[in-house]
Amino acid sequence: MCRWIAYRGETIPLEQYVTAPAHSLVVQSLKALESTASTNGDGFGMGWYGEHPEPGLYREVRPAWSDENLRYLCRHIRSHLYFGHVRASTGTPITRPNCHPFACGRWLFMHNGLIGNWTRLRRKVEALIPDEFYPSRIGTTDSEAVFLAILGAGGDKDPIGATRRTLATLTDMVGTNTEPLRFTAALANGRDLYAFRYAANDNANTLYYRESGDNVVVVSEPLDSERSHWKPVPPSHMIVAQAGKPVSLEPFLAEARVAAE
Amino acid sequence: MCRWIAYRGETIPLEQYVTAPAHSLVVQSLKALESTASTNGDGFGMGWYGEHPEPGLYREVRPAWSDENLRYLCRHIRSHLYFGHVRASTGTPITRPNCHPFACGRWLFMHNGLIGNWTRLRRKVEALIPDEFYPSRIGTTDSEAVFLAILGAGGDKDPIGATRRTLATLTDMVGTNTEPLRFTAALANGRDLYAFRYAANDNANTLYYRESGDNVVVVSEPLDSERSHWKPVPPSHMIVAQAGKPVSLEPFLAEARVAAE
Amino acid sequence: MCRWIAYRGETIPLEQYVTAPAHSLVVQSLKALESTASTNGDGFGMGWYGEHPEPGLYREVRPAWSDENLRYLCRHIRSHLYFGHVRASTGTPITRPNCHPFACGRWLFMHNGLIGNWTRLRRKVEALIPDEFYPSRIGTTDSEAVFLAILGAGGDKDPIGATRRTLATLTDMVGTNTEPLRFTAALANGRDLYAFRYAANDNANTLYYRESGDNVVVVSEPLDSERSHWKPVPPSHMIVAQAGKPVSLEPFLAEARVAAE
Amino acid sequence: MCRWIAYRGETIPLEQYVTAPAHSLVVQSLKALESTASTNGDGFGMGWYGEHPEPGLYREVRPAWSDENLRYLCRHIRSHLYFGHVRASTGTPITRPNCHPFACGRWLFMHNGLIGNWTRLRRKVEALIPDEFYPSRIGTTDSEAVFLAILGAGGDKDPIGATRRTLATLTDMVGTNTEPLRFTAALANGRDLYAFRYAANDNANTLYYRESGDNVVVVSEPLDSERSHWKPVPPSHMIVAQAGKPVSLEPFLAEARVAAE
Repeated sequence: MCRWIAYRGETIPLEQYVTAPAHSLVVQSLKALESTASTNGDGFGMGWYGEHPEPGLYREVRPAWSDENLRYLCRHIRSHLYFGHVRASTGTPITRPNCHPFACGRWLFMHNGLIGNWTRLRRKVEALIPDEFYPSRIGTTDSEAVFLAILGAGGDKDPIGATRRTLATLTDMVGTNTEPLRFTAALANGRDLYAFRYAANDNANTLYYRESGDNVVVVSEPLDSERSHWKPVPPSHMIVAQAGKPVSLEPFLAEARVAAE
Repeated sequence: MCRWIAYRGETIPLEQYVTAPAHSLVVQSLKALESTASTNGDGFGMGWYGEHPEPGLYREVRPAWSDENLRYLCRHIRSHLYFGHVRASTGTPITRPNCHPFACGRWLFMHNGLIGNWTRLRRKVEALIPDEFYPSRIGTTDSEAVFLAILGAGGDKDPIGATRRTLATLTDMVGTNTEPLRFTAALANGRDLYAFRYAANDNANTLYYRESGDNVVVVSEPLDSERSHWKPVPPSHMIVAQAGKPVSLEPFLAEARVAAE
Repeated sequence: MCRWIAYRGETIPLEQYVTAPAHSLVVQSLKALESTASTNGDGFGMGWYGEHPEPGLYREVRPAWSDENLRYLCRHIRSHLYFGHVRASTGTPITRPNCHPFACGRWLFMHNGLIGNWTRLRRKVEALIPDEFYPSRIGTTDSEAVFLAILGAGGDKDPIGATRRTLATLTDMVGTNTEPLRFTAALANGRDLYAFRYAANDNANTLYYRESGDNVVVVSEPLDSERSHWKPVPPSHMIVAQAGKPVSLEPFLAEARVAAE
Repeated sequence: MCRWIAYRGETIPLEQYVTAPAHSLVVQSLKALESTASTNGDGFGMGWYGEHPEPGLYREVRPAWSDENLRYLCRHIRSHLYFGHVRASTGTPITRPNCHPFACGRWLFMHNGLIGNWTRLRRKVEALIPDEFYPSRIGTTDSEAVFLAILGAGGDKDPIGATRRTLATLTDMVGTNTEPLRFTAALANGRDLYAFRYAANDNANTLYYRESGDNVVVVSEPLDSERSHWKPVPPSHMIVAQAGKPVSLEPFLAEARVAAE
């Protein structure tokens, strides 16, 4: 299990959520509280939008807690929409292309979860990626494959529908009550942010959000001890934070087979 | 284009060919002479056989010339059959799983060359890898895919035949006079060493060998200025160095369409 | 606080203590039990003696738990005297030259501990290193400085005496009841192994050893749950394991001011 | 010998000089033209000023040419005053703290050159660093030591005078006609940029500058083939680019003993 944060709102330095809070993402890399993996030291990454239509990306195989570049970059880079992710690998190698977030065109994606028995299902999931997007498969994770499958399913025009269709397909692949599928993910295009919490055959990984004016931050676990500010996203739900619209919590994909939490 | 060396013979420290010669592999990483890429600084790797049936592997994304670990390891590790490789990437990311050599079971493989238009052909080549070997695809290079395709074609029992069949298939894939296919590679199982020089639609990359008693070393380019000691392997030929047999130079795969050298 | 193991005895693969045990050094890198730092992910290193008079060294800034090279090397390198160390930095940068063990000529050294207020005392400690050994100061840690100070105090001919004199000097530097000085360290020359447990103004870091025939392994914390096999080294004591002599537990340096454990 | 660029002027993306030109700094990392070291692959770094009074820093041990993070950061980070540096080590280890630029408070510094016989002179040069600045010595290069010596000589209030005094002291240290001292360096505080070209007992390393309106860029070698736009800085001279004043070329430190160019 990994830990991540996603922010959309007024332009702020990345440090406000990545390095500054008491229980910041960098602190979580060394000691997460709501994760089965208390250490998230298998690389990390940040993605952000600025003046260029395509996002910036900084990914590194070293743990976030000891990366001095990260502190400088978080202080100096400002963004209205950014992602931060610390990784606990579920088996794929610790390489930069396997670190989240993943970028493709103007889209960013990051993930906490897994496709159970990836070795057996990998080819089927990779087959969901259309030829057009296969050159963007530069790593080997299940997460990157799911991202490119979503884009291949029409994610650019219909991000929610494409994500829903892809996850329904993946749910069919893992089958009822067999392999776990956990998908707690964020998707953005520079204007809009979507965050999903879903699972099949398992409990969904935790997800929280906090609103403050027009700003919203979505996190794997709260960044401070003021728990009342952090609202849980229920399983099978999503956060939709589109430009010019209020943030909304909506149903994502009903999963009858999900275990009770 | 990369540079590599492969050795089979009496047990010696790796340094004898990797770091010690005047124009050692490490020197070639900074300044190769017979390569279109004079700098081979996109990672490196070594593979060797010892008492364990499976080979050892040391791969790193930094350039070989500045890796202090490499010097210590080459001084201390002794082997009767080992590979060394310095990489000049043809496009795939600089990650450890993309560095040569590649290991699978008791087999080692390394490569200097490319499959032209890898983006277009990648799926077809990956489809040559049987499900049994697909979990060993931990990187994204064309070279690793060819290695696993060879093993999938029966490389364990018939390494020469499986390599020949795989290269014939790849030659069909690139087509006549279209995309280049260059394959200068080494394959070993702990007892036997095979080294191939082949190309379609292009000149084959250089390959030399040097025999001394029962020892043989095969190299992308000579390791010293005594050029008379180094015999070129002709295009479409291979070196076969099997345990208990004399080293032989044999035809590999006729390629009528190869350009004149 | 770091974690380390040191072994002297018959020639064995490094994996026997570094990667194989239930609570191996690599497991401790992710989750140590008797350390204030439960994660030791700030780089790691191994040093070992083979046929060459000078030791081999492999140091890396990534965490030990995710380094695939480490597993290959531990399986293939065999030694009669070797060190393994996983680091939790006390402030100096995560670089290879700052990872333990440190090598100088035929000597190896590694350390778990610290010199309190290193910023204030650094120049004084560095001044203990004679000019002859100052070119070997390639990193910036307190540990490397202490090692070179020991060699400068005559460590090559009288390792115990030189270590005792150096630590007495350091104890004077930190002063009574002011800055902590913790020194749990191993020193070797290819034949003999010395391991020290000492502290001033603080509790000494834990140290255990286990004998089995002529073999001895010294560890920061036991490698398995058979606690009865692991004997604690008392504070202010040392293990002396010299070639051709029985292993002995001896007083090192009395420290009246050390706090009760 | 390293290669570097320094820019002061209107706010632009870093890519304009680091990655975009035909003979950009990144191209020079693989193939420099006016350097004795044609490959500058021993790490790299960037420093820049934004809204925060202290500069940002990104340093990495891998070669600049293969660092995908560098391309993203250069596209997204904008600055009115920034440095870029690709390193060819003269002997000190390839670590991030040994990569240029170096930062201390609001000051940035980078260097192309060396202090001859650094092993012999290191202690003397380090002794020039006052205690106040010694905690900022996090690496082991001659360049970082010179930077901290300049700050210790009053660089914050009188950068030109402090640099001149420090280089005069260093010239005395190397002595007449003995060890070479080459110093081609840039110094900045967020408002003002200074670039120096000087040597003792050797030819000074090349330095060029190009003005365009109020913008100035200073480089080790021209970034494109329009050589007429690039004016050489003569040996023993400096570029002074202070906020609100025209850029000026001024004498730095007369060096009678410098060899003819």
